[in-house]
Amino acid sequence: MSVLGDAQEIIKAAIRQVLPGESVKRELQGYKPPAGRLYVVSVGKAAYTMAAAAKEVLGDQIHSGIVITKYGHIKGELEGFSCFEGGHPTPDENSFLAAEKVLELTKNLTREDEVLFLLSGGASALFEKPMIPGEELLDITKQLLACGADITEINIVRKHLSCVKGGRFARWCMPAHVHSVILSDVVGGRLDSIGSGPACVDLSTRGQAMEIVKKYGIRLSAEAENALRQETPKRLENTSYCMIGDVKLLCEAAAGKCRELGYETQILTDSLSCEAKEAGSFLSAIARTHDKTGKSLAFIAGGETVVHLSGTGKGGRNQELALSAAEGLMGLHEVCIFSVGSDGTDGPTDAAGGIVDAHTACRLKAAGIDIYQTLRDNNAYYALQAADGLVVTGPTGTNVNDVAVLLIKRRERT
Amino acid sequence: MSVLGDAQEIIKAAIRQVLPGESVKRELQGYKPPAGRLYVVSVGKAAYTMAAAAKEVLGDQIHSGIVITKYGHIKGELEGFSCFEGGHPTPDENSFLAAEKVLELTKNLTREDEVLFLLSGGASALFEKPMIPGEELLDITKQLLACGADITEINIVRKHLSCVKGGRFARWCMPAHVHSVILSDVVGGRLDSIGSGPACVDLSTRGQAMEIVKKYGIRLSAEAENALRQETPKRLENTSYCMIGDVKLLCEAAAGKCRELGYETQILTDSLSCEAKEAGSFLSAIARTHDKTGKSLAFIAGGETVVHLSGTGKGGRNQELALSAAEGLMGLHEVCIFSVGSDGTDGPTDAAGGIVDAHTACRLKAAGIDIYQTLRDNNAYYALQAADGLVVTGPTGTNVNDVAVLLIKRRERT
Repeated sequence: MSVLGDAQEIIKAAIRQVLPGESVKRELQGYKPPAGRLYVVSVGKAAYTMAAAAKEVLGDQIHSGIVITKYGHIKGELEGFSCFEGGHPTPDENSFLAAEKVLELTKNLTREDEVLFLLSGGASALFEKPMIPGEELLDITKQLLACGADITEINIVRKHLSCVKGGRFARWCMPAHVHSVILSDVVGGRLDSIGSGPACVDLSTRGQAMEIVKKYGIRLSAEAENALRQETPKRLENTSYCMIGDVKLLCEAAAGKCRELGYETQILTDSLSCEAKEAGSFLSAIARTHDKTGKSLAFIAGGETVVHLSGTGKGGRNQELALSAAEGLMGLHEVCIFSVGSDGTDGPTDAAGGIVDAHTACRLKAAGIDIYQTLRDNNAYYALQAADGLVVTGPTGTNVNDVAVLLIKRRERT
Repeated sequence: MSVLGDAQEIIKAAIRQVLPGESVKRELQGYKPPAGRLYVVSVGKAAYTMAAAAKEVLGDQIHSGIVITKYGHIKGELEGFSCFEGGHPTPDENSFLAAEKVLELTKNLTREDEVLFLLSGGASALFEKPMIPGEELLDITKQLLACGADITEINIVRKHLSCVKGGRFARWCMPAHVHSVILSDVVGGRLDSIGSGPACVDLSTRGQAMEIVKKYGIRLSAEAENALRQETPKRLENTSYCMIGDVKLLCEAAAGKCRELGYETQILTDSLSCEAKEAGSFLSAIARTHDKTGKSLAFIAGGETVVHLSGTGKGGRNQELALSAAEGLMGLHEVCIFSVGSDGTDGPTDAAGGIVDAHTACRLKAAGIDIYQTLRDNNAYYALQAADGLVVTGPTGTNVNDVAVLLIKRRERT
């Protein structure tokens, strides 16, 4: 098989490993239900699939459940579950209403009961019940954004204004146990960041929240000030969790397939966060240095790169990473670099990412396309399309960030 | 020793290995002089030091020699040598005059004679005799720059307009042998690029040169048109060469010291060319992923990163690379990232580069310095100064690009 054929195998294997339904089923195979009632609360973009998988494994052992997901993500009735759709990426009244239903369902639980909390990306917006009116929460967020507060600061303030974030949902469920099964879209894997950590001890403090409000001179109602004075849980004895899918597992799945295909494989990082096109350049520099070792090598870099827009073209971070590696691969035989988003939709395109090899730059030149102008225009999609370099998987239903792989394929001499 | 102490040792060892004087002496130990006369032609920024070292080893075996270097780089008389200084980075009349002297010296050589050609960075400007008047060469270069021609294109045209570049100096010396001893400042190590390859077969063609001139509509005199019609040597049977210092050797020297200090060491690349601050971010992402293996690890990335200026501060590419890694190292014990230019002068500063560890970001915060604002201002020098993160070696007299190293130090449990 060619190096490009290997790449397709690796992409398939990596994404398969982090699909929400399969991952939940695998995890719940050995699940021991509680002596009391089992409630399932599934929130996030993959909530419906995860709940359906839990239902398939646990069946009637589930007393009742709730699903909260994005608009258009509910695929039908789910016996024993109430399903809600809400606003994303900004919470709306339906998000608040759905969270209310969850709090009703999990009110007055006993020590024998258990909440199986299925958490996936998007839960910060989809699962929210603010301690203040929704309009004021929106206004405070807008003020913070306008002052240049970063996302970490904004989340610290929002956690302290929420009835469910920052561990407060788990505290609400006490004395029942809350077991979280998590599909993470957060690079670096900080548990209290995933969905703003409804069932996880909060590592931020009310002191920090108040400091941020003071630093930026944010206007607050008396109600909001009062809310900020209350601390989020710093200790929770009724929680446990399991990570069923994250960028680390995505990288490990890619690495496993690389090894199976005969590549000496190294995961360089699972927390990549630099500019997409510079990561592509870095990986192609690695390719040029390792091209002559005579060994089949794979280098893996997972995470979530960023794109600073300078144009108005069509593309995505994975496509930019791949395209920017094209020139550096010229003349390297049986070498390729690809980058794909595990959700199958890279930027506002129908591609999951891009793939380039020694021929890509020549094909682009033949088509009259300048790589660097294309990158300045953020127009990687059309360039890769012209060079047969788009990776298309269709939407996968999961989101555990991206994985980029450099493959150098060498055959044993016969 | 701490990880920071190790870093200092590695920096010293890496630069020591590529110092021009020592490297020339090492290389010439086994040198067999020719039956006829031995001429030494030494051109480039390190020309004086390299010639002095050759003189030290070969003494009276040298019939006569010429040194051409930058203004201020001649450190005294050198017996048997004529020493010249010329313009850099733009050649001037003194460059042309000095090249003329070299051509005189190497006129009418015999098959028994040999030219020892000591070549270092800067030679493109310092060693030049155009086939057209100097003013027209300057004008053509300006036209090419104004049209957006890239450096590769500009060099192809200039090679074809030169009496000494693109292998023509070696052809001039025929039938004498020309042995090049090279200290390279070119990433990727293409021989015909180093000093525009005076003693090396030219891989570019007159066809390409004429195509570039046509593409950008460059105005040429009849004389220049005629010059462009002449081909550079495509075959040379009187040349040999030895690379005594380049970024590959710099990386290998750093790697050797890392291994000696107990680090499991990997050269990721010796042809890094991406944006400096994104390389720093990439390396810190590698650090976070490998922090918990329990092994002492070193990752090396050599090359020459770039900085796109957005501010007017003081700094250099190595300082920006280091500074941009600082935040990602927070909380990582006994981990550091440094980047240094082998010439000892990073950008317009008196530092060779920068070094950061877990404490750097805290120190910067305490000093009221925002890392990202500093990078936008291209002001890394003052930030690193405040955080004790400058690497100062003084000018080293060599230039074989830069090396960046990530160190993760773990102690055996006792």
